[in-house]
Amino acid sequence: MHWKKSDLLFLPVGGSEEIGMNANLYHYEDKWILIDLGISFPDETDLGIDVLLPDFKFIKSLGDKFLGIFLTHGHEDHIGAIPYFADDINCPIWGTSFTMALLKRKLKENNKEKKLELNTLTIDKQLIIGPFQIKAIQTSHSIPDPVSILISTKQGDIFHTGDWKLENSINLNEKTNIDNFRSIGENGILAMVCDSTNALVDGKTPSENFAYDGLLDTIKNCNDTVLVTCFSSNISRIKSLLDIALKTDRSVLVVGRALLRAIDAAKEVGYLKNIPELLSLKDFNLIPRSNVLIISTGSQGEPNSALSRISKDNDKFIKLIKGDTIIFSSRKIPGNENAILKVQNRFLERGINIVTDDDKNVHVSGHPSRDELIEMYSFIKPKISIPVHGTREHIEAHSDLANNCQVPLVIKPKNGEVIKLNGNAPNIVSRFDFVTHVYDAGEIIPINNERFITRRHSLWNGFVTISIVIDKDGYLVITPQISQIGVSDNSIVDNVLIDISLKIEDFIENLSCDPEILDEELISQISKLVRREFKSTFSKRPIVKVHINRV
Amino acid sequence: MHWKKSDLLFLPVGGSEEIGMNANLYHYEDKWILIDLGISFPDETDLGIDVLLPDFKFIKSLGDKFLGIFLTHGHEDHIGAIPYFADDINCPIWGTSFTMALLKRKLKENNKEKKLELNTLTIDKQLIIGPFQIKAIQTSHSIPDPVSILISTKQGDIFHTGDWKLENSINLNEKTNIDNFRSIGENGILAMVCDSTNALVDGKTPSENFAYDGLLDTIKNCNDTVLVTCFSSNISRIKSLLDIALKTDRSVLVVGRALLRAIDAAKEVGYLKNIPELLSLKDFNLIPRSNVLIISTGSQGEPNSALSRISKDNDKFIKLIKGDTIIFSSRKIPGNENAILKVQNRFLERGINIVTDDDKNVHVSGHPSRDELIEMYSFIKPKISIPVHGTREHIEAHSDLANNCQVPLVIKPKNGEVIKLNGNAPNIVSRFDFVTHVYDAGEIIPINNERFITRRHSLWNGFVTISIVIDKDGYLVITPQISQIGVSDNSIVDNVLIDISLKIEDFIENLSCDPEILDEELISQISKLVRREFKSTFSKRPIVKVHINRV
Repeated sequence: MHWKKSDLLFLPVGGSEEIGMNANLYHYEDKWILIDLGISFPDETDLGIDVLLPDFKFIKSLGDKFLGIFLTHGHEDHIGAIPYFADDINCPIWGTSFTMALLKRKLKENNKEKKLELNTLTIDKQLIIGPFQIKAIQTSHSIPDPVSILISTKQGDIFHTGDWKLENSINLNEKTNIDNFRSIGENGILAMVCDSTNALVDGKTPSENFAYDGLLDTIKNCNDTVLVTCFSSNISRIKSLLDIALKTDRSVLVVGRALLRAIDAAKEVGYLKNIPELLSLKDFNLIPRSNVLIISTGSQGEPNSALSRISKDNDKFIKLIKGDTIIFSSRKIPGNENAILKVQNRFLERGINIVTDDDKNVHVSGHPSRDELIEMYSFIKPKISIPVHGTREHIEAHSDLANNCQVPLVIKPKNGEVIKLNGNAPNIVSRFDFVTHVYDAGEIIPINNERFITRRHSLWNGFVTISIVIDKDGYLVITPQISQIGVSDNSIVDNVLIDISLKIEDFIENLSCDPEILDEELISQISKLVRREFKSTFSKRPIVKVHINRV
Repeated sequence: MHWKKSDLLFLPVGGSEEIGMNANLYHYEDKWILIDLGISFPDETDLGIDVLLPDFKFIKSLGDKFLGIFLTHGHEDHIGAIPYFADDINCPIWGTSFTMALLKRKLKENNKEKKLELNTLTIDKQLIIGPFQIKAIQTSHSIPDPVSILISTKQGDIFHTGDWKLENSINLNEKTNIDNFRSIGENGILAMVCDSTNALVDGKTPSENFAYDGLLDTIKNCNDTVLVTCFSSNISRIKSLLDIALKTDRSVLVVGRALLRAIDAAKEVGYLKNIPELLSLKDFNLIPRSNVLIISTGSQGEPNSALSRISKDNDKFIKLIKGDTIIFSSRKIPGNENAILKVQNRFLERGINIVTDDDKNVHVSGHPSRDELIEMYSFIKPKISIPVHGTREHIEAHSDLANNCQVPLVIKPKNGEVIKLNGNAPNIVSRFDFVTHVYDAGEIIPINNERFITRRHSLWNGFVTISIVIDKDGYLVITPQISQIGVSDNSIVDNVLIDISLKIEDFIENLSCDPEILDEELISQISKLVRREFKSTFSKRPIVKVHINRV
């Protein structure tokens, strides 16, 4: 380890090579705290994988030196990994009301709710955790109760922004206070660790009003049923839609477990108090079609979502018809474009209209565009800028922007790099080789685990299994059995298998001069023979498993 | 069949539900011709599949009634399926020089070159093929020698645009002749069947000069090695790059088999006559780094491409270093975004600059944007518009545009729909249930083939194989063997397998009262037992194969 006890360190565990999987460690006086512990989702290059998790080994190794986890807000890429690591977390977790209401529900679904010490963070109230002073600063995002975290130490203060934008969410109690940011900056900030998601987007991210107006305008002009799909945690958007439903004389029907869970959490913390009664799916047929507004999950084209089911006209209750309208009040997460397109095309083919944010202002981002980043640098005036929450491309763009804002030092982090912030030459002082992990078969394992290579190979090639029964003299007792799965179902397959079985018979007969041959050698030779035959007949290299049964 | 011999029919086999896989049939007087026979590529929702092919069954069934295939240009989505169906094609194929030079090379690589009758299409020269008069009309695209096809019949004329744009390619002999389009329109066109690829893009697609200027400007300002990646068939772009290399005092090095093949084809037909000598990979180290311009394939992030290898610093000859520049002179094909990003990020991490068409004008499209579509409608003035070569979204947008251009009738086609063009009420008169096909294990099969379902299941769940040896009384002769592949490699696996083996032993012992039990029943029961155990221990549902060996 190339650091001292008294060093103030930043160590990104996740989020500094990707958008998502945020997990950021800070060290001082031999103690550590973590901001956020999120998941990410695999793209088409990570086949056979459900969820990506940060490398938790180092955090686990810290033992008592690990003092706490602070959550900036309740999105999956900031809190989603907590249920996975719950058994290994022995420190308290802090977050604002809505964040904790969501987290509690997630933990409960995973039977982990009793394991953890959960505390509510209060805006602007100082907490002292070991050598760190922690203050949650109100900000604005696309979910209720987001905060930045101000970490004060004797070596200097760090402003960790979390996800933010400057325009306030309407409908929510929160209010971004620019004077607050200014006064934080005036007190002197050593390092700002800041969201890079929209570092490639020019201008300023508009407020929720912009989406409200676009949605109202669109829905007002629809004569039939309208379905709006959005991210489940976007409570501000849901409030906009409830209000628009009232104005356009529509009853609201909510579809999707994640939406119902988020609405429930929002009600618990007081965000959706006096809303009209939400209808159940069964009521769909009881109301005139033109008086219905459906809010649904499925905006990313998820094949198992209600929206995908409705697009195939397979839903038990919701039947959409020509003239109805689907509004995608959401962005396309990169990698989901084709899945979304397939859902949209199924609706289009049936004469159902599709409206997206390419057509109308029906969505706004929750992240700061370049002009807001520039503003934030003018408020906070950090000595060091560390762009996080981005791929290399976003971090590079954010870094160039910070340089243009005349931040004296910009450090581009990479997951696993230990960045010393104090002293004359803040710099990367050490490097961990963190590996993205995944949850599979009930355990958390590195993404490069052998099983995925095997399974991906089988995706293209299928399997062959052979069983051989031989006696103690090395003679075959019965004909070798051979089966293929997923290689081919061409009518020639049966003949090919019989042919290979005969070849194995010949091979073993020729070997019987050597009854001492080891199973290992026999398996290797038979596998080779089988692979050769499948290669030449089917141009496939199936996975081959041979059982030698000696009787 | 709901049509008459004398009906003039249009029947899209592929390309009317996707961008790509173009294959369009025309019928008159009981004879059929086909325009293009292309492939498409699977997206992330078609796992385990290499290539998508149109349904060829109906075309094959036509026998002698099928008179010929006309190719509009040499892109894969217009000619790529020909090698796959070569054995079933018994009619001549026509295409312009460069198209045929590329096709010949493809056929040769697949050992199909002697099978087919290949003819060269001459611009503006009338061909009489049965009841059809065919004329190839010069147009412009992102490959040499593209043409539109004018089909004249006694029932009316059809203008099939192929892929086109109005701005001429510089560097190529061809010249789009607007007067030509105008005079075709003045002679009266019954139906225009037209490219929808850019129907969502406003304005006009710029000429190749635009990309030339952007590339020259970018490369002029680079002090180190420059690598440009582009589509291999974009000969106009390659000529631009050769010219820019001369102007910036760089030697050119070409990487990638597809590029070398396209350059070879272009030379054969006279497009790249007096070009400077291209260097070989081995020469990379002999020239000063700042005097090298590399042209490479791999613009789509293909994991096996040279560019991907170079990004990992694994190439034997080409070593790029900090300060070098990679220019992506290409568009991102939807679905490839993440693969491209991964390659780019590897370069960025090593301090190598990335320039894309988001940063600079280093690429132009080969398809008509909305203003060009409007112009083309004003030239051709068809009675019927049929938008093709697009997903539903593109076809809808193109259709709205055609309506705004006051085309009297717009028909939105779907693969398999038989569209009658003559008579008082042109309309869809019949419908085939065409299924996208794929090439797998040496054969062409429907995309919904069972093997893909099995393989995709194994991608998530792995595979278990069991072999049992029992005697004629139904008693186990030896311990059941059980293996798992790709389910898990956790240390508990061995114990779980032993445990399951014991459970199978118990199960068979309890059964031995019934020596008559059929293998089928035994296999089903054992499979159930194994599945249950894997579900409860690993939350996995592996594919299970049981061999019963009776001795």
